[in-house]
Amino acid sequence: MKAEMIAVGTELLLGQIVNTNAQYLSQQLAMLGIDVYYQTVVGDNPARLKDVVATAMERADLVLLTGGLGPTMDDITKDVVAELLDRSMEMHLPSLQKMEDMFRDRGVAMVESNRRQAHMIEGSDALDNSAGLAVGNALIQDGTAFILLPGPPKEMKPMFEEQVIPWLENNLFEERVTLYSRMLKFAGIGESNLEASLIDLIELQTDPTIAPYAKEGEVLIRLATKSSSLQEAEQKLNDMEEQILVRVGKYLFARADVSLEQVLVEQFTKHHLSLAAAESCTGGLFGELITSVAGSSQMFTGGVITYSNQMKHELLNVPMELLEGEQAPGAVSHETARAMADGLLKLMKTDYAVSITGVAGPGQSERKPAGLVYIGIAAKGEETVTHELRLNGNREMIRLRAVKILMQRLWQRLQDKGLITI
Amino acid sequence: MKAEMIAVGTELLLGQIVNTNAQYLSQQLAMLGIDVYYQTVVGDNPARLKDVVATAMERADLVLLTGGLGPTMDDITKDVVAELLDRSMEMHLPSLQKMEDMFRDRGVAMVESNRRQAHMIEGSDALDNSAGLAVGNALIQDGTAFILLPGPPKEMKPMFEEQVIPWLENNLFEERVTLYSRMLKFAGIGESNLEASLIDLIELQTDPTIAPYAKEGEVLIRLATKSSSLQEAEQKLNDMEEQILVRVGKYLFARADVSLEQVLVEQFTKHHLSLAAAESCTGGLFGELITSVAGSSQMFTGGVITYSNQMKHELLNVPMELLEGEQAPGAVSHETARAMADGLLKLMKTDYAVSITGVAGPGQSERKPAGLVYIGIAAKGEETVTHELRLNGNREMIRLRAVKILMQRLWQRLQDKGLITI
Repeated sequence: MKAEMIAVGTELLLGQIVNTNAQYLSQQLAMLGIDVYYQTVVGDNPARLKDVVATAMERADLVLLTGGLGPTMDDITKDVVAELLDRSMEMHLPSLQKMEDMFRDRGVAMVESNRRQAHMIEGSDALDNSAGLAVGNALIQDGTAFILLPGPPKEMKPMFEEQVIPWLENNLFEERVTLYSRMLKFAGIGESNLEASLIDLIELQTDPTIAPYAKEGEVLIRLATKSSSLQEAEQKLNDMEEQILVRVGKYLFARADVSLEQVLVEQFTKHHLSLAAAESCTGGLFGELITSVAGSSQMFTGGVITYSNQMKHELLNVPMELLEGEQAPGAVSHETARAMADGLLKLMKTDYAVSITGVAGPGQSERKPAGLVYIGIAAKGEETVTHELRLNGNREMIRLRAVKILMQRLWQRLQDKGLITI
Repeated sequence: MKAEMIAVGTELLLGQIVNTNAQYLSQQLAMLGIDVYYQTVVGDNPARLKDVVATAMERADLVLLTGGLGPTMDDITKDVVAELLDRSMEMHLPSLQKMEDMFRDRGVAMVESNRRQAHMIEGSDALDNSAGLAVGNALIQDGTAFILLPGPPKEMKPMFEEQVIPWLENNLFEERVTLYSRMLKFAGIGESNLEASLIDLIELQTDPTIAPYAKEGEVLIRLATKSSSLQEAEQKLNDMEEQILVRVGKYLFARADVSLEQVLVEQFTKHHLSLAAAESCTGGLFGELITSVAGSSQMFTGGVITYSNQMKHELLNVPMELLEGEQAPGAVSHETARAMADGLLKLMKTDYAVSITGVAGPGQSERKPAGLVYIGIAAKGEETVTHELRLNGNREMIRLRAVKILMQRLWQRLQDKGLITI
């Protein structure tokens, strides 16, 4: 079944609000196994709205419209659809009654224009609005179903869940086929490299489909299959997952759309481990991401942002001979990353301490190029490990990538020790 | 001028991401005085994309496409537009060179598909990508201008601001009346409060127009007027600005769309002042935002993230009697905020030291509600000041608002001392 969505509202075209309804409805339709082919936004203009609805009617089995059901002159969606379908307008008496009762209860006079919210396209089914006044409409004409929903998400979402889903099941679904999907989350490998490793699978994909998405230093792969039974779907998803993991399994860190920081907070907490971070070029980003996860206070003891060499020396005990002088490796080096991690482990007395020092750019530092970053991981009673990274992108991306790669290495460390099984 | 936008990406149709690009571009075009009539989202499907672009070409003077410029098989935007316009594909050699250099520097083999990111539609102008690899394209055919931009907002926004605006000015704007605009940037006041203070001005606005935009804990007000002379425009903008500043002038921190952290880095550097931050509930966010500004190493010495009470005591010398015990004010208190700022000033020996401690939520801490935050500012030879904040929103918003209010107070402090005049 082919669906499309039309959001009506000049405020969307002016950028005053984001069209989050499109995301919500797309997710809901995907779960119902309905394919969305287009989303359109159009202003409160009768001629342009009519054009857009007419185009949608030609190519879709299901057209969902949001917005333009309110009381004002700008709210034109019902009138435009009725005119296009050559139908008249009726009054939905239960909705009118509800509105009159509500105004009477509040002791407020009902403005005449409010009656428009109880309008129905002739011959359509009413969709009750449990969170507002505008009644929704649903109808089928010439093989296309039209669903008219209010624009405010707090009215639209309950109407979809309470009214639209049952209406679709009763009117459009002969045999219920459900879409089953699975998320695989990878880090430590770029989107293009991941895709290159799976290119033949992706190109030959039919069922399940394989879709990779880049996400802030992480990559999400979504497997999806339509099936009439959970068991059949699970079998197909398992087979495909196995083929993928043979190739890139070492970068997998979760089977859900969660972030590395969420996984780390969860695993450190579960194993009663504590963590601290010493940051130079990332200036607090590692700590900020970890502490963005609720509950991180259970495992994150704290950190230091040692932006100056003096602070690296005073707080973390990094020898000045490492940091300054002609022959010194400098602040951006394996040696300094190691000394920072070791110094922090002592200072914070945590189980793990990580460090990041590098050149975020723009421009060089210590005659080293932007994107050169060293990360370190120290752990109680274990050997400290450092890695050299050569990252590209602007300042913001270099910082984010450095932090995410450090998180991935830390996750890998826990996995290598057998603390995580995925 | 009539514009429309086309976002290309199946992930939008599946509801996996929200089309925030549409909002950003709509706002930008509104500021340029360009009317947006339609926004469309279509999947990575050549036939459907071609249809959508053909329709847009018939009705618009300017078509902006986002997404589908990456290296994968799904990235089809350039190919589809080229085919529709009957043009061939060329290689943009500088972009290819940049990509090859980048892969060589990183010591990583370049996957062949990456070359696609340097493709150009024959006869188009290249739009450099300062934050990624895919080059943008701009061209005019049969009276319609086409702009092809990458999908990731981190690449799309800089490309729009650095490349597209000048391109539009050079190629499309010869005959128009000039739009003069002025930005006023406020902090320490919410968007709704700011708007409530100016509601009569906003409602009666005709010329100049007044548009408020909420921006990550800051509010931007844009005044705009179309005029044939700079002098006339300046007079109108000055008059309106004066009316606004009589009411909310104390929250103004810049006459440009810059962030508080940019202004702070600039002013601290200019006055040779140093800064350090002690963070608890914000976990590094203050440091991260300050160090996101290139050049911040000139003024930001560093910080500590003291998430645990033990670290507040050991690193910052906050007395344990303040932190723990039945009668103690606790970690979330005026007293602790003051002791953290004072302790950090000693530790880092900076001119200024700030502190943040609070309950980011969800849920309470020390039987104190989420949103209760204390901030402190200590300065060499001056009395330390603390403030109690009661913030609302989720964890992320509480943290961001706390940091931005602290920045605003710090800015205010410099202004009160006569260091900043605006």
